Amino acid sequence: MSGAIDVVLVNGVRDAGVSVLDRGLQFGDGLFETIACVKGRPRFLPLHLERLEFGCERLAVAAPNLDEIGAEVVELARDVERAIVKVLVTAGEAVARGYARSGNERATRITLRYAWPHEVLAQLHDGVMVRTLTLRLGENPRLAGLKHCNRLEQILARAELASDAGLAEGILFSSSGNLVSGTSSNVFLVRESCLLTPRIDLCGVAGVMRRVVLREARQVGIPTRECELRAQDVQDADEVFLTNARIGIWPVRTLDARELAIGPVTRHLQSVLAPLLDEPADA
Amino acid sequence: MSGAIDVVLVNGVRDAGVSVLDRGLQFGDGLFETIACVKGRPRFLPLHLERLEFGCERLAVAAPNLDEIGAEVVELARDVERAIVKVLVTAGEAVARGYARSGNERATRITLRYAWPHEVLAQLHDGVMVRTLTLRLGENPRLAGLKHCNRLEQILARAELASDAGLAEGILFSSSGNLVSGTSSNVFLVRESCLLTPRIDLCGVAGVMRRVVLREARQVGIPTRECELRAQDVQDADEVFLTNARIGIWPVRTLDARELAIGPVTRHLQSVLAPLLDEPADA
Repeated sequence: MSGAIDVVLVNGVRDAGVSVLDRGLQFGDGLFETIACVKGRPRFLPLHLERLEFGCERLAVAAPNLDEIGAEVVELARDVERAIVKVLVTAGEAVARGYARSGNERATRITLRYAWPHEVLAQLHDGVMVRTLTLRLGENPRLAGLKHCNRLEQILARAELASDAGLAEGILFSSSGNLVSGTSSNVFLVRESCLLTPRIDLCGVAGVMRRVVLREARQVGIPTRECELRAQDVQDADEVFLTNARIGIWPVRTLDARELAIGPVTRHLQSVLAPLLDEPADA
Repeated sequence: MSGAIDVVLVNGVRDAGVSVLDRGLQFGDGLFETIACVKGRPRFLPLHLERLEFGCERLAVAAPNLDEIGAEVVELARDVERAIVKVLVTAGEAVARGYARSGNERATRITLRYAWPHEVLAQLHDGVMVRTLTLRLGENPRLAGLKHCNRLEQILARAELASDAGLAEGILFSSSGNLVSGTSSNVFLVRESCLLTPRIDLCGVAGVMRRVVLREARQVGIPTRECELRAQDVQDADEVFLTNARIGIWPVRTLDARELAIGPVTRHLQSVLAPLLDEPADA
Protein backbone atom coordinates (compact mmCIF):
# COMPACT_ATOMS: atom_id res chain seq x y z
CA MET A 1 0.00 0.00 0.00
CA SER A 2 2.47 2.58 1.20
CA GLY A 3 5.40 4.21 -0.51
CA ALA A 4 9.06 4.48 0.36
CA ILE A 5 10.44 7.29 2.48
CA ASP A 6 12.95 9.72 0.99
CA VAL A 7 13.22 12.63 3.43
CA VAL A 8 13.50 12.69 7.23
CA LEU A 9 13.75 15.99 9.08
CA VAL A 10 13.88 16.25 12.88
CA ASN A 11 13.38 19.79 14.11
CA GLY A 12 14.41 20.87 10.64
CA VAL A 13 17.65 18.88 10.58
CA ARG A 14 17.98 16.23 7.91
CA ASP A 15 18.35 12.66 9.19
CA ALA A 16 18.77 13.77 12.78
CA GLY A 17 17.76 11.39 15.56
CA VAL A 18 15.14 11.54 18.28
CA SER A 19 15.92 11.02 21.95
CA VAL A 20 14.89 7.62 23.31
CA LEU A 21 13.34 9.67 26.13
CA ASP A 22 10.99 11.43 23.73
CA ARG A 23 7.49 11.31 25.15
CA GLY A 24 6.25 10.34 21.71
CA LEU A 25 8.16 7.08 22.01
CA GLN A 26 7.47 6.52 25.69
CA PHE A 27 3.72 7.22 25.66
CA GLY A 28 2.56 8.13 22.14
CA ASP A 29 2.40 11.67 23.52
CA GLY A 30 2.05 13.58 20.27
CA LEU A 31 0.00 14.38 17.18
CA PHE A 32 0.43 13.95 13.46
CA GLU A 33 -0.83 15.08 10.09
CA THR A 34 -0.70 13.19 6.82
CA ILE A 35 -0.67 15.70 4.00
CA ALA A 36 -1.20 14.81 0.37
CA CYS A 37 1.05 16.83 -1.94
CA VAL A 38 0.10 17.04 -5.58
CA LYS A 39 1.79 18.88 -8.46
CA GLY A 40 4.25 20.60 -6.18
CA ARG A 41 1.72 21.78 -3.58
CA PRO A 42 0.45 20.45 -0.24
CA ARG A 43 -3.32 19.98 -0.32
CA PHE A 44 -5.45 21.70 2.35
CA LEU A 45 -2.35 22.77 4.29
CA PRO A 46 -4.17 25.43 6.36
CA LEU A 47 -6.73 22.84 7.51
CA HIS A 48 -3.97 20.43 8.53
CA LEU A 49 -2.12 23.14 10.45
CA GLU A 50 -5.31 24.27 12.13
CA ARG A 51 -6.08 20.76 13.35
CA LEU A 52 -2.50 20.30 14.52
CA GLU A 53 -2.63 23.54 16.49
CA PHE A 54 -5.97 22.58 18.01
CA GLY A 55 -4.61 19.17 18.98
CA CYS A 56 -1.54 20.67 20.65
CA GLU A 57 -3.80 22.97 22.65
CA ARG A 58 -6.08 20.15 23.71
CA LEU A 59 -3.19 17.92 24.78
CA ALA A 60 -1.18 20.84 26.19
CA VAL A 61 1.74 19.99 23.95
CA ALA A 62 4.05 22.99 23.61
CA ALA A 63 2.76 24.94 20.60
CA PRO A 64 4.89 24.28 17.55
CA ASN A 65 5.79 27.07 15.16
CA LEU A 66 3.12 26.60 12.50
CA ASP A 67 4.76 28.96 10.02
CA GLU A 68 7.90 26.91 10.23
CA ILE A 69 6.00 23.65 9.80
CA GLY A 70 4.03 25.09 6.89
CA ALA A 71 7.19 26.29 5.16
CA GLU A 72 8.80 22.90 5.64
CA VAL A 73 5.86 21.09 4.09
CA VAL A 74 5.69 23.53 1.16
CA GLU A 75 9.39 23.01 0.57
CA LEU A 76 9.06 19.22 0.58
CA ALA A 77 6.06 19.36 -1.78
CA ARG A 78 7.88 21.53 -4.32
CA ASP A 79 9.28 19.69 -7.32
CA VAL A 80 7.41 16.46 -6.66
CA GLU A 81 4.47 15.37 -8.76
CA ARG A 82 2.93 13.50 -5.85
CA ALA A 83 4.07 12.72 -2.33
CA ILE A 84 2.76 12.19 1.17
CA VAL A 85 4.26 14.40 3.85
CA LYS A 86 3.73 13.28 7.42
CA VAL A 87 4.34 15.79 10.19
CA LEU A 88 4.63 14.48 13.72
CA VAL A 89 4.75 16.79 16.72
CA THR A 90 5.50 15.15 20.05
CA ALA A 91 5.55 16.57 23.56
CA GLY A 92 9.35 16.37 23.42
CA GLU A 93 12.04 14.76 25.50
CA ALA A 94 10.89 13.65 28.95
CA VAL A 95 12.62 15.55 31.70
CA ALA A 96 11.69 12.87 34.24
CA ARG A 97 10.17 9.41 34.37
CA GLY A 98 6.41 9.10 34.58
CA TYR A 99 3.31 10.52 32.92
CA ALA A 100 3.54 14.03 34.34
CA ARG A 101 4.98 16.70 32.09
CA SER A 102 7.31 19.19 33.76
CA GLY A 103 6.08 22.00 31.52
CA ASN A 104 9.65 22.60 30.36
CA GLU A 105 9.55 20.10 27.49
CA ARG A 106 10.12 21.41 23.99
CA ALA A 107 8.04 19.82 21.25
CA THR A 108 9.82 17.57 18.77
CA ARG A 109 8.92 18.06 15.12
CA ILE A 110 9.45 15.20 12.70
CA THR A 111 8.69 15.68 9.02
CA LEU A 112 8.75 12.72 6.68
CA ARG A 113 8.24 12.56 2.93
CA TYR A 114 6.97 9.35 1.39
CA ALA A 115 6.37 8.36 -2.20
CA TRP A 116 2.69 8.37 -3.15
CA PRO A 117 1.53 4.81 -2.62
CA HIS A 118 0.55 2.53 -5.42
CA GLU A 119 -3.16 2.79 -5.85
CA VAL A 120 -5.76 0.90 -7.77
CA LEU A 121 -7.47 3.48 -9.94
CA ALA A 122 -10.39 1.15 -10.51
CA GLN A 123 -11.10 1.33 -6.76
CA LEU A 124 -11.39 5.09 -6.90
CA HIS A 125 -13.94 4.81 -9.67
CA ASP A 126 -15.72 1.53 -9.08
CA GLY A 127 -15.55 1.56 -5.31
CA VAL A 128 -14.05 -0.65 -2.65
CA MET A 129 -14.95 -3.69 -0.64
CA VAL A 130 -15.33 -3.02 3.06
CA ARG A 131 -16.07 -5.15 6.11
CA THR A 132 -17.39 -4.31 9.57
CA LEU A 133 -14.61 -5.07 12.04
CA THR A 134 -15.13 -6.71 15.42
CA LEU A 135 -12.88 -4.33 17.37
CA ARG A 136 -14.79 -1.57 19.14
CA LEU A 137 -13.15 1.81 19.72
CA GLY A 138 -12.95 3.18 23.26
CA GLU A 139 -14.72 6.47 23.91
CA ASN A 140 -12.99 9.49 25.35
CA PRO A 141 -14.25 13.02 24.63
CA ARG A 142 -10.87 14.44 25.67
CA LEU A 143 -9.17 12.66 22.78
CA ALA A 144 -12.02 12.62 20.26
CA GLY A 145 -11.31 14.43 17.00
CA LEU A 146 -7.55 14.58 17.47
CA LYS A 147 -5.10 12.86 15.18
CA HIS A 148 -2.95 11.85 18.13
CA CYS A 149 -0.26 9.21 18.31
CA ASN A 150 -2.14 6.68 20.46
CA ARG A 151 -3.06 4.37 17.61
CA LEU A 152 -3.03 0.83 18.98
CA GLU A 153 -6.75 0.51 18.31
CA GLN A 154 -6.25 1.36 14.65
CA ILE A 155 -3.32 -1.03 14.44
CA LEU A 156 -5.38 -3.90 15.87
CA ALA A 157 -8.27 -2.98 13.60
CA ARG A 158 -6.01 -2.86 10.57
CA ALA A 159 -4.66 -6.30 11.48
CA GLU A 160 -8.20 -7.68 11.28
CA LEU A 161 -8.26 -6.68 7.61
CA ALA A 162 -4.97 -8.30 6.80
CA SER A 163 -6.50 -11.73 6.38
CA ASP A 164 -8.46 -10.62 3.32
CA ALA A 165 -6.44 -8.87 0.64
CA GLY A 166 -9.55 -7.89 -1.29
CA LEU A 167 -10.75 -5.55 1.44
CA ALA A 168 -9.67 -1.92 1.20
CA GLU A 169 -10.96 -0.79 4.57
CA GLY A 170 -12.87 -1.81 7.66
CA ILE A 171 -15.76 -0.08 9.38
CA LEU A 172 -15.45 0.57 13.11
CA PHE A 173 -18.04 1.07 15.82
CA SER A 174 -17.47 2.43 19.31
CA SER A 175 -17.76 0.58 22.62
CA SER A 176 -21.31 1.91 22.92
CA GLY A 177 -22.24 0.74 19.43
CA ASN A 178 -22.03 3.97 17.47
CA LEU A 179 -20.61 4.10 13.96
CA VAL A 180 -17.23 5.89 14.05
CA SER A 181 -15.01 5.54 10.98
CA GLY A 182 -12.74 3.32 8.94
CA THR A 183 -9.29 2.42 10.23
CA SER A 184 -7.78 5.42 8.45
CA SER A 185 -10.76 7.12 6.90
CA ASN A 186 -14.00 8.82 7.84
CA VAL A 187 -17.33 7.35 6.81
CA PHE A 188 -20.38 8.91 5.21
CA LEU A 189 -23.84 7.51 4.58
CA VAL A 190 -26.42 8.81 2.14
CA ARG A 191 -30.08 8.30 2.97
CA GLU A 192 -32.88 9.93 1.03
CA SER A 193 -30.32 12.25 -0.58
CA CYS A 194 -29.14 13.50 2.83
CA LEU A 195 -25.46 13.15 3.77
CA LEU A 196 -24.89 11.65 7.22
CA THR A 197 -21.63 11.21 9.09
CA PRO A 198 -20.85 10.32 12.71
CA ARG A 199 -20.37 13.12 15.20
CA ILE A 200 -16.77 13.21 16.50
CA ASP A 201 -17.54 13.93 20.13
CA LEU A 202 -16.64 10.63 21.79
CA CYS A 203 -14.18 9.03 19.44
CA GLY A 204 -12.81 9.17 15.92
CA VAL A 205 -10.60 11.61 14.07
CA ALA A 206 -11.90 14.87 12.63
CA GLY A 207 -10.50 14.20 9.17
CA VAL A 208 -9.50 17.08 6.94
CA MET A 209 -11.25 15.48 3.97
CA ARG A 210 -14.34 14.90 6.10
CA ARG A 211 -14.41 18.62 6.78
CA VAL A 212 -13.92 19.49 3.12
CA VAL A 213 -16.65 17.09 2.02
CA LEU A 214 -19.15 18.51 4.53
CA ARG A 215 -18.31 22.04 3.44
CA GLU A 216 -18.58 21.29 -0.27
CA ALA A 217 -21.79 19.34 0.17
CA ARG A 218 -23.41 22.28 1.95
CA GLN A 219 -22.15 24.60 -0.75
CA VAL A 220 -23.89 22.63 -3.50
CA GLY A 221 -27.08 22.28 -1.48
CA ILE A 222 -26.80 18.69 -0.27
CA PRO A 223 -28.31 18.50 3.21
CA THR A 224 -25.78 17.23 5.78
CA ARG A 225 -26.05 15.94 9.33
CA GLU A 226 -23.37 15.05 11.88
CA CYS A 227 -25.17 12.68 14.23
CA GLU A 228 -25.19 9.45 16.18
CA LEU A 229 -25.41 6.54 13.75
CA ARG A 230 -25.95 2.85 14.53
CA ALA A 231 -25.45 -0.38 12.61
CA GLN A 232 -29.04 -0.16 11.41
CA ASP A 233 -28.33 3.23 9.83
CA VAL A 234 -25.52 1.66 7.85
CA GLN A 235 -27.91 -1.08 6.75
CA ASP A 236 -30.47 1.50 5.71
CA ALA A 237 -28.04 3.68 3.76
CA ASP A 238 -28.57 4.12 0.03
CA GLU A 239 -24.93 5.00 -0.51
CA VAL A 240 -21.79 4.67 1.61
CA PHE A 241 -18.41 6.25 1.03
CA LEU A 242 -15.13 6.77 2.87
CA THR A 243 -12.87 9.81 2.87
CA ASN A 244 -9.29 10.54 3.68
CA ALA A 245 -6.74 13.20 2.89
CA ARG A 246 -5.03 11.21 0.19
CA ILE A 247 -7.91 9.53 -1.57
CA GLY A 248 -10.67 12.08 -1.30
CA ILE A 249 -13.83 9.99 -1.69
CA TRP A 250 -13.80 6.21 -1.85
CA PRO A 251 -17.20 4.82 -2.85
CA VAL A 252 -18.10 1.58 -1.08
CA ARG A 253 -19.52 -1.05 -3.40
CA THR A 254 -19.51 -4.00 -1.03
CA LEU A 255 -20.15 -3.73 2.69
CA ASP A 256 -20.04 -7.12 4.41
CA ALA A 257 -22.46 -9.25 2.40
CA ARG A 258 -24.29 -6.31 0.87
CA GLU A 259 -23.76 -4.89 -2.62
CA LEU A 260 -24.20 -1.15 -2.95
CA ALA A 261 -24.71 1.00 -5.99
CA ILE A 262 -22.43 3.99 -6.30
CA GLY A 263 -25.21 6.50 -6.21
CA PRO A 264 -25.82 10.03 -7.45
CA VAL A 265 -24.78 11.88 -4.26
CA THR A 266 -21.41 10.11 -4.13
CA ARG A 267 -20.83 10.79 -7.83
CA HIS A 268 -21.89 14.40 -7.43
CA LEU A 269 -19.51 14.97 -4.54
CA GLN A 270 -16.68 13.24 -6.36
CA SER A 271 -17.09 15.62 -9.26
CA VAL A 272 -17.31 18.64 -6.95
CA LEU A 273 -14.17 17.52 -5.15
CA ALA A 274 -12.13 16.64 -8.24
CA PRO A 275 -10.77 20.15 -8.99
CA LEU A 276 -9.89 20.62 -5.30
CA LEU A 277 -7.91 17.41 -5.37
CA ASP A 278 -6.28 18.60 -8.55
CA GLU A 279 -7.09 15.37 -10.26
CA PRO A 280 -8.83 14.76 -13.56
CA ALA A 281 -12.57 14.91 -12.94
CA ASP A 282 -13.14 11.32 -14.03
CA ALA A 283 -10.52 9.76 -11.76
CA MET B 1 8.82 12.92 41.84
CA SER B 2 11.07 11.05 39.46
CA GLY B 3 14.77 10.43 39.46
CA ALA B 4 17.51 11.10 36.96
CA ILE B 5 18.42 8.62 34.25
CA ASP B 6 21.89 7.10 34.18
CA VAL B 7 21.76 4.21 31.71
CA VAL B 8 20.21 3.95 28.24
CA LEU B 9 20.43 0.71 26.25
CA VAL B 10 18.82 0.24 22.84
CA ASN B 11 18.80 -3.40 21.76
CA GLY B 12 21.60 -3.90 24.24
CA VAL B 13 23.80 -1.09 22.90
CA ARG B 14 24.59 1.74 25.28
CA ASP B 15 23.34 5.17 24.24
CA ALA B 16 22.29 3.96 20.80
CA GLY B 17 19.46 5.78 19.00
CA VAL B 18 16.04 4.71 17.83
CA SER B 19 14.82 5.17 14.28
CA VAL B 20 12.37 8.05 13.81
CA LEU B 21 10.32 5.47 11.93
CA ASP B 22 9.96 3.31 15.03
CA ARG B 23 6.32 2.35 15.45
CA GLY B 24 6.63 3.19 19.11
CA LEU B 25 7.23 6.81 18.18
CA GLN B 26 4.74 6.91 15.31
CA PHE B 27 1.81 5.21 17.07
CA GLY B 28 2.74 4.28 20.64
CA ASP B 29 2.94 0.74 19.26
CA GLY B 30 4.68 -0.96 22.14
CA LEU B 31 4.66 -2.06 25.77
CA PHE B 32 6.66 -1.27 28.86
CA GLU B 33 7.52 -2.48 32.33
CA THR B 34 8.66 -0.39 35.27
CA ILE B 35 10.69 -2.59 37.57
CA ALA B 36 11.73 -1.61 41.07
CA CYS B 37 15.26 -2.77 41.89
CA VAL B 38 16.24 -2.98 45.54
CA LYS B 39 19.52 -4.08 47.13
CA GLY B 40 20.97 -5.22 43.84
CA ARG B 41 17.94 -7.22 42.69
CA PRO B 42 14.94 -6.53 40.45
CA ARG B 43 11.69 -7.12 42.32
CA PHE B 44 9.11 -9.54 40.86
CA LEU B 45 11.08 -9.86 37.62
CA PRO B 46 9.31 -13.05 36.47
CA LEU B 47 5.92 -11.34 36.85
CA HIS B 48 7.08 -8.35 34.82
CA LEU B 49 8.47 -10.58 32.07
CA GLU B 50 5.31 -12.65 32.02
CA ARG B 51 3.13 -9.57 31.57
CA LEU B 52 5.45 -8.24 28.87
CA GLU B 53 5.29 -11.52 26.99
CA PHE B 54 1.51 -11.62 27.29
CA GLY B 55 1.26 -8.02 26.03
CA CYS B 56 3.43 -8.76 23.01
CA GLU B 57 1.23 -11.73 22.16
CA ARG B 58 -1.96 -9.71 22.51
CA LEU B 59 -0.63 -6.85 20.36
CA ALA B 60 1.17 -9.21 17.97
CA VAL B 61 4.45 -7.45 18.60
CA ALA B 62 7.36 -9.68 17.60
CA ALA B 63 8.24 -11.70 20.70
CA PRO B 64 11.29 -10.26 22.41
CA ASN B 65 13.94 -12.52 23.91
CA LEU B 66 12.81 -12.61 27.54
CA ASP B 67 16.01 -14.25 28.77
CA GLU B 68 18.00 -11.44 27.24
CA ILE B 69 15.72 -8.79 28.77
CA GLY B 70 15.83 -10.51 32.15
CA ALA B 71 19.62 -10.69 32.08
CA GLU B 72 19.83 -7.02 31.14
CA VAL B 73 17.60 -5.99 34.03
CA VAL B 74 19.51 -8.17 36.51
CA GLU B 75 22.76 -6.62 35.31
CA LEU B 76 21.42 -3.07 35.74
CA ALA B 77 20.08 -3.85 39.21
CA ARG B 78 23.39 -5.26 40.43
CA ASP B 79 25.47 -2.91 42.55
CA VAL B 80 22.73 -0.35 43.07
CA GLU B 81 20.96 0.04 46.39
CA ARG B 82 17.77 1.21 44.68
CA ALA B 83 16.87 2.02 41.09
CA ILE B 84 13.97 1.92 38.69
CA VAL B 85 14.55 0.02 35.46
CA LYS B 86 12.11 0.70 32.65
CA VAL B 87 11.98 -1.75 29.76
CA LEU B 88 10.20 -0.66 26.60
CA VAL B 89 9.51 -3.07 23.74
CA THR B 90 8.12 -1.50 20.59
CA ALA B 91 6.88 -3.10 17.37
CA GLY B 92 10.07 -1.86 15.71
CA GLU B 93 10.91 0.27 12.72
CA ALA B 94 8.01 0.78 10.34
CA VAL B 95 8.68 -0.75 6.97
CA ALA B 96 5.98 1.38 5.36
CA ARG B 97 3.68 4.27 6.20
CA GLY B 98 0.36 3.53 7.84
CA TYR B 99 -1.07 1.44 10.65
CA ALA B 100 -0.59 -1.98 9.06
CA ARG B 101 2.41 -3.97 10.17
CA SER B 102 4.25 -5.84 7.43
CA GLY B 103 5.06 -8.71 9.75
CA ASN B 104 8.75 -8.20 9.05
CA GLU B 105 9.35 -5.66 11.79
CA ARG B 106 11.85 -6.52 14.50
CA ALA B 107 10.96 -5.37 18.00
CA THR B 108 13.00 -2.55 19.50
CA ARG B 109 14.11 -3.03 23.10
CA ILE B 110 14.92 0.04 25.17
CA THR B 111 16.17 -0.38 28.72
CA LEU B 112 16.52 2.65 30.96
CA ARG B 113 17.81 2.93 34.51
CA TYR B 114 16.59 5.78 36.69
CA ALA B 115 17.52 6.82 40.20
CA TRP B 116 14.90 5.87 42.77
CA PRO B 117 12.71 8.93 43.10
CA HIS B 118 12.57 11.07 46.18
CA GLU B 119 9.74 9.81 48.31
CA VAL B 120 7.96 11.04 51.36
CA LEU B 121 8.24 8.23 53.89
CA ALA B 122 5.43 9.74 55.94
CA GLN B 123 3.12 9.12 52.96
CA LEU B 124 3.96 5.43 52.98
CA HIS B 125 3.06 5.21 56.64
CA ASP B 126 0.38 7.83 57.18
CA GLY B 127 -1.26 7.57 53.80
CA VAL B 128 -1.86 9.90 50.90
CA MET B 129 -4.39 12.43 49.77
CA VAL B 130 -6.27 11.42 46.64
CA ARG B 131 -8.91 13.05 44.46
CA THR B 132 -11.41 11.65 41.99
CA LEU B 133 -10.47 12.95 38.55
CA THR B 134 -12.95 14.15 35.95
CA LEU B 135 -11.33 12.35 33.01
CA ARG B 136 -13.02 9.04 32.16
CA LEU B 137 -11.00 6.21 30.64
CA GLY B 138 -12.13 4.71 27.35
CA GLU B 139 -13.02 1.02 27.38
CA ASN B 140 -11.41 -1.51 25.10
CA PRO B 141 -11.17 -5.17 26.08
CA ARG B 142 -8.46 -5.70 23.47
CA LEU B 143 -6.14 -3.32 25.32
CA ALA B 144 -7.34 -3.86 28.89
CA GLY B 145 -4.71 -5.18 31.28
CA LEU B 146 -1.75 -4.34 29.09
CA LYS B 147 0.93 -1.86 30.04
CA HIS B 148 1.04 -0.53 26.51
CA CYS B 149 2.49 2.74 25.27
CA ASN B 150 -0.80 4.51 24.45
CA ARG B 151 -0.85 6.66 27.55
CA LEU B 152 -2.44 9.97 26.58
CA GLU B 153 -5.33 9.31 28.95
CA GLN B 154 -2.95 8.88 31.87
CA ILE B 155 -1.03 12.01 30.84
CA LEU B 156 -4.22 14.08 30.76
CA ALA B 157 -5.32 12.57 34.06
CA ARG B 158 -1.96 13.30 35.64
CA ALA B 159 -2.20 16.91 34.46
CA GLU B 160 -5.46 17.27 36.39
CA LEU B 161 -3.49 16.56 39.57
CA ALA B 162 -0.77 19.07 38.85
CA SER B 163 -2.82 21.96 40.18
CA ASP B 164 -2.70 20.57 43.71
CA ALA B 165 0.74 19.63 45.00
CA GLY B 166 -0.72 17.99 48.10
CA LEU B 167 -2.36 15.21 46.08
CA ALA B 168 -0.35 12.05 45.53
CA GLU B 169 -2.71 10.37 43.10
CA GLY B 170 -6.05 10.62 41.35
CA ILE B 171 -8.80 8.05 41.09
CA LEU B 172 -10.13 7.23 37.62
CA PHE B 173 -13.45 5.86 36.43
CA SER B 174 -14.25 4.47 32.99
CA SER B 175 -16.57 5.94 30.37
CA SER B 176 -19.31 3.67 31.68
CA GLY B 177 -18.76 4.78 35.28
CA ASN B 178 -16.78 1.88 36.69
CA LEU B 179 -13.88 2.38 39.07
CA VAL B 180 -10.61 1.59 37.27
CA SER B 181 -7.39 2.74 38.93
CA GLY B 182 -5.14 5.63 39.82
CA THR B 183 -3.11 7.35 37.09
CA SER B 184 -0.17 5.02 37.75
CA SER B 185 -1.47 2.67 40.40
CA ASN B 186 -4.18 0.10 40.99
CA VAL B 187 -6.87 0.67 43.57
CA PHE B 188 -8.25 -1.56 46.32
CA LEU B 189 -11.23 -1.11 48.59
CA VAL B 190 -11.88 -2.90 51.88
CA ARG B 191 -15.48 -3.47 52.91
CA GLU B 192 -16.46 -5.67 55.83
CA SER B 193 -12.91 -7.08 55.87
CA CYS B 194 -13.20 -8.19 52.23
CA LEU B 195 -10.66 -6.92 49.69
CA LEU B 196 -12.22 -5.56 46.48
CA THR B 197 -10.49 -4.38 43.33
CA PRO B 198 -11.80 -3.56 39.84
CA ARG B 199 -11.82 -6.28 37.23
CA ILE B 200 -9.39 -5.48 34.41
CA ASP B 201 -11.53 -6.64 31.52
CA LEU B 202 -12.48 -3.33 29.85
CA CYS B 203 -9.74 -0.96 30.88
CA GLY B 204 -6.89 -0.48 33.30
CA VAL B 205 -3.50 -2.08 33.71
CA ALA B 206 -3.02 -5.46 35.38
CA GLY B 207 -0.38 -4.20 37.79
CA VAL B 208 2.28 -6.53 39.06
CA MET B 209 1.80 -5.26 42.62
CA ARG B 210 -1.97 -5.72 42.24
CA ARG B 211 -1.33 -9.34 41.41
CA VAL B 212 1.06 -9.78 44.33
CA VAL B 213 -1.37 -8.15 46.79
CA LEU B 214 -4.26 -10.37 45.64
CA ARG B 215 -2.07 -13.46 45.95
CA GLU B 216 -0.75 -12.55 49.39
CA ALA B 217 -4.19 -11.60 50.67
CA ARG B 218 -5.58 -15.00 49.66
CA GLN B 219 -2.61 -16.68 51.28
CA VAL B 220 -3.31 -15.06 54.66
CA GLY B 221 -7.03 -15.75 54.41
CA ILE B 222 -8.37 -12.32 53.47
CA PRO B 223 -11.33 -12.79 51.15
CA THR B 224 -10.77 -11.05 47.78
CA ARG B 225 -13.02 -10.13 44.88
CA GLU B 226 -12.24 -8.72 41.43
CA CYS B 227 -15.49 -7.13 40.39
CA GLU B 228 -17.32 -4.15 38.91
CA LEU B 229 -17.15 -1.24 41.36
CA ARG B 230 -18.97 2.10 41.17
CA ALA B 231 -18.53 5.47 42.87
CA GLN B 232 -20.90 4.35 45.60
CA ASP B 233 -18.65 1.40 46.41
CA VAL B 234 -15.77 3.81 46.93
CA GLN B 235 -18.00 5.87 49.24
CA ASP B 236 -18.96 2.77 51.16
CA ALA B 237 -15.41 1.47 51.58
CA ASP B 238 -13.97 1.17 55.08
CA GLU B 239 -10.42 1.37 53.77
CA VAL B 240 -8.89 2.38 50.44
CA PHE B 241 -5.35 1.83 49.22
CA LEU B 242 -3.34 2.09 46.03
CA THR B 243 -0.61 -0.19 44.75
CA ASN B 244 2.23 0.02 42.30
CA ALA B 245 5.45 -1.78 41.59
CA ARG B 246 7.62 0.79 43.31
CA ILE B 247 5.58 1.73 46.33
CA GLY B 248 3.83 -1.47 47.23
CA ILE B 249 0.80 -0.32 49.20
CA TRP B 250 -0.15 3.34 49.60
CA PRO B 251 -2.90 3.82 52.18
CA VAL B 252 -5.38 6.54 51.26
CA ARG B 253 -6.17 8.85 54.16
CA THR B 254 -8.11 11.52 52.30
CA LEU B 255 -10.32 10.81 49.30
CA ASP B 256 -11.96 13.99 47.97
CA ALA B 257 -13.62 15.51 51.04
CA ARG B 258 -13.64 12.29 53.02
CA GLU B 259 -11.17 11.32 55.76
CA LEU B 260 -10.35 7.64 55.98
CA ALA B 261 -8.76 5.65 58.75
CA ILE B 262 -5.89 3.43 57.73
CA GLY B 263 -7.55 0.25 58.79
CA PRO B 264 -6.49 -3.20 59.91
CA VAL B 265 -6.65 -4.93 56.49
CA THR B 266 -4.38 -2.32 54.91
CA ARG B 267 -1.94 -2.56 57.82
CA HIS B 268 -2.02 -6.34 57.74
CA LEU B 269 -1.26 -6.45 54.02
CA GLN B 270 1.51 -3.87 54.40
CA SER B 271 3.19 -6.07 56.99
CA VAL B 272 2.73 -9.19 54.85
CA LEU B 273 4.22 -7.39 51.86
CA ALA B 274 7.14 -5.77 53.66
CA PRO B 275 9.58 -8.69 53.44
CA LEU B 276 8.71 -9.18 49.76
CA LEU B 277 9.53 -5.54 49.10
CA ASP B 278 12.74 -6.02 51.03
CA GLU B 279 11.96 -3.01 53.15
CA PRO B 280 11.87 -2.67 56.93
CA ALA B 281 8.48 -3.92 58.11
CA ASP B 282 7.49 -0.56 59.55
CA ALA B 283 8.15 1.46 56.38
